[in-house]
Amino acid sequence: MRAAVIATGAELVAGLVKESNSNFIARELSEVGIELVNIFICGDQKESIKQNINYARQAADLIFISGGLGPTKDDITKVAFAEELGIEMTYSAEIEKSLVKFFKKTQSEISENNFSQAYLPAGAEILENRHGTAPALKFTAQGKQFYLLPGVPIELKSIFNKQIKADLVSLTENKFLSQEFNFIGIGESTLAAEIEKLKLDQRLIISYQAGRGEVKLRIKFNSKNNYAAEQIGQQLIKNATEIIKDKFSTYLYSFDDQDIVDIVAKTLQEQGLTIAAAESFTGGTLAERLTAKAGSSGFFKGSVVAYTKELKNKLLKINNKLLDKYGTVSKQCAEKMAANVANILETSIGISATGAAGPDPLEGHPAGTMFVAIYYQGEIRSWKLEKSYGRSLNRFYASQFLFLELKNLLTKIKEEDKLCLKK
Amino acid sequence: MRAAVIATGAELVAGLVKESNSNFIARELSEVGIELVNIFICGDQKESIKQNINYARQAADLIFISGGLGPTKDDITKVAFAEELGIEMTYSAEIEKSLVKFFKKTQSEISENNFSQAYLPAGAEILENRHGTAPALKFTAQGKQFYLLPGVPIELKSIFNKQIKADLVSLTENKFLSQEFNFIGIGESTLAAEIEKLKLDQRLIISYQAGRGEVKLRIKFNSKNNYAAEQIGQQLIKNATEIIKDKFSTYLYSFDDQDIVDIVAKTLQEQGLTIAAAESFTGGTLAERLTAKAGSSGFFKGSVVAYTKELKNKLLKINNKLLDKYGTVSKQCAEKMAANVANILETSIGISATGAAGPDPLEGHPAGTMFVAIYYQGEIRSWKLEKSYGRSLNRFYASQFLFLELKNLLTKIKEEDKLCLKK
Repeated sequence: MRAAVIATGAELVAGLVKESNSNFIARELSEVGIELVNIFICGDQKESIKQNINYARQAADLIFISGGLGPTKDDITKVAFAEELGIEMTYSAEIEKSLVKFFKKTQSEISENNFSQAYLPAGAEILENRHGTAPALKFTAQGKQFYLLPGVPIELKSIFNKQIKADLVSLTENKFLSQEFNFIGIGESTLAAEIEKLKLDQRLIISYQAGRGEVKLRIKFNSKNNYAAEQIGQQLIKNATEIIKDKFSTYLYSFDDQDIVDIVAKTLQEQGLTIAAAESFTGGTLAERLTAKAGSSGFFKGSVVAYTKELKNKLLKINNKLLDKYGTVSKQCAEKMAANVANILETSIGISATGAAGPDPLEGHPAGTMFVAIYYQGEIRSWKLEKSYGRSLNRFYASQFLFLELKNLLTKIKEEDKLCLKK
Repeated sequence: MRAAVIATGAELVAGLVKESNSNFIARELSEVGIELVNIFICGDQKESIKQNINYARQAADLIFISGGLGPTKDDITKVAFAEELGIEMTYSAEIEKSLVKFFKKTQSEISENNFSQAYLPAGAEILENRHGTAPALKFTAQGKQFYLLPGVPIELKSIFNKQIKADLVSLTENKFLSQEFNFIGIGESTLAAEIEKLKLDQRLIISYQAGRGEVKLRIKFNSKNNYAAEQIGQQLIKNATEIIKDKFSTYLYSFDDQDIVDIVAKTLQEQGLTIAAAESFTGGTLAERLTAKAGSSGFFKGSVVAYTKELKNKLLKINNKLLDKYGTVSKQCAEKMAANVANILETSIGISATGAAGPDPLEGHPAGTMFVAIYYQGEIRSWKLEKSYGRSLNRFYASQFLFLELKNLLTKIKEEDKLCLKK
């Protein structure tokens, strides 16, 4: 079973409105294991809609068409559909009745235009629309199933959930099992090359997606709704997950679409730990990302953004001798910043970032030379990062990397706590 | 000239990612008066991409294809394109060279996979991609123009703006004259109602677009490349611009797609002024936005994010009596924060923000009660903002508002300087 979605509307191709119905339908279809092969977005000219219905029929057996069911002149989806499939239009007394009822209920005046909504392709089944006047239609012809849906997202969603979803399960033989992995600190191509070396079972479908300062890996298995195959698929995914976890433990930070800061924030709260940041080139990014989370006052106390050497000395109490000897773009400076900010702001953890974000070099270090550090209970760890993603992504990447290492540290603390409790 | 967009990627038809490139291209085409007739979204199977290229060729003469130019196995747009158009693939030494350079610069390891990016359809023109390794391609065949673009939005946008936009103007008979206005501190519907009252010339096309913490207004005139009409259009737009400038001077901050912080940063640099921030609920947003700009070390010294009452006292030297009397969510606290941070960090200007970002109330003030202040040469101005945009947008909006008022102050300083020079 292959599906296609056609979204119609002049506002969509003019860029005035971001089309969102197709994404909703895509996610719903994916849930039940129906493959969506194509989305078509076109304006509201009849010929264009007909052409897109034609494309969709070539590509798929299950076709959703959204938009153009309203009462105005540009609402001609039903006519285009009937013409393309060679069906007559008929007047539905049933729809007329429900229109009259709707307008009575909303105490608004019914216009001539509204009655145009009572015409429908002969043989179409009416799906009730509780949120608007445009009824949705279901139509089966030539072995293909069509759904004509209103373009207003709330109306489409409600009809889909209440009157279509249940139909779909019976339409598919597929059932996809899948597992997602999110990585920081490893590039898409390196990850792909490493995954290839693992020689995972060939029945697994592997895909990658690069995000901002992170990479997503997804493994999928099509069990075709077969119980035995499902058992095999679950086992294959479980095995692959173990292998991937084992191989990439330092880069892998979550199995779903979470923000790394959410994980860090949650763990800090659970562990009753507090944190402060000392920032140079990240210029507030660390603090901004931590405080973006509701409830951050429970673990975040504050941050010092010391952009100049003078302020690193004045606000963060870093010895001028150290600053003169190693410079501000140094491991030594990053480590002192992390330790001192934790000390001054009286927090359990201190994190820091200092370096050259770019575009220009700093103190003889090329743009993208960045030092980050984490202080916890008298111990300091630091990392040198060398990237050339450009100023903005360099800054963001450094924060991603720092939060990843913070997550790794917090996991370790949690495990040690558990050990202590056992003892 | 009719255009079509094809967006490819398994994540798009699976509903995992909301496709956004087509909307960006749609808006850009609309700007120059090119009609976008169809958007096609498909997965990353070669046959499917070929089929969609075929559809697009039937519908349009100008075709944009996004996605599938990366180094992994599922990146096969170029091959699909070459096959569909019957072109050979060739190896580009030029791309290889730039790949080697890119990886050398980023000091990351180049994998075999990466070299697959050096293959391209024979005769394609290479468009440089400054944000990634995948070069974009331009190809003209059979009277049709194709652009193959990377799927990562930031890469696509940058290539489009720098290397494609100028091409498009020559492709259309329409000629739109337009003027953009950017506002902060006034809502879209209020703005629209006020603009309506102005009764601007009916030949002008007026549109609005709500952004993050700002509203864009655009007035357009289609001169259809006719000289006389163009003269009229220019006059109409000039008149309307004067009226709008006059009416909305406090909210209007720019006439193009500039970030308010760019204007502030540039003026601070020109005036030789320095700035520091004291932040509570914005949690680093003010500092982060200022330091996002290259060259910010020329005017930005640092910021203190004091999330707790204790740190407002300890780091920002705010009297505990004041904090106890008025609370941290107060005009008095905001004003002291701005003045003290300028004093401690020895800058010309101090800005501050304190309040309840949400979702919870704070010190008896509902979420969205926010105070911001600006200190300059012994004078302090402060504002109370009451919004209920939700935590994230509340924070951002406060920063927008503060930068707008900072811009207004800097404009005043600049004008006074000019007056002094004249005297």
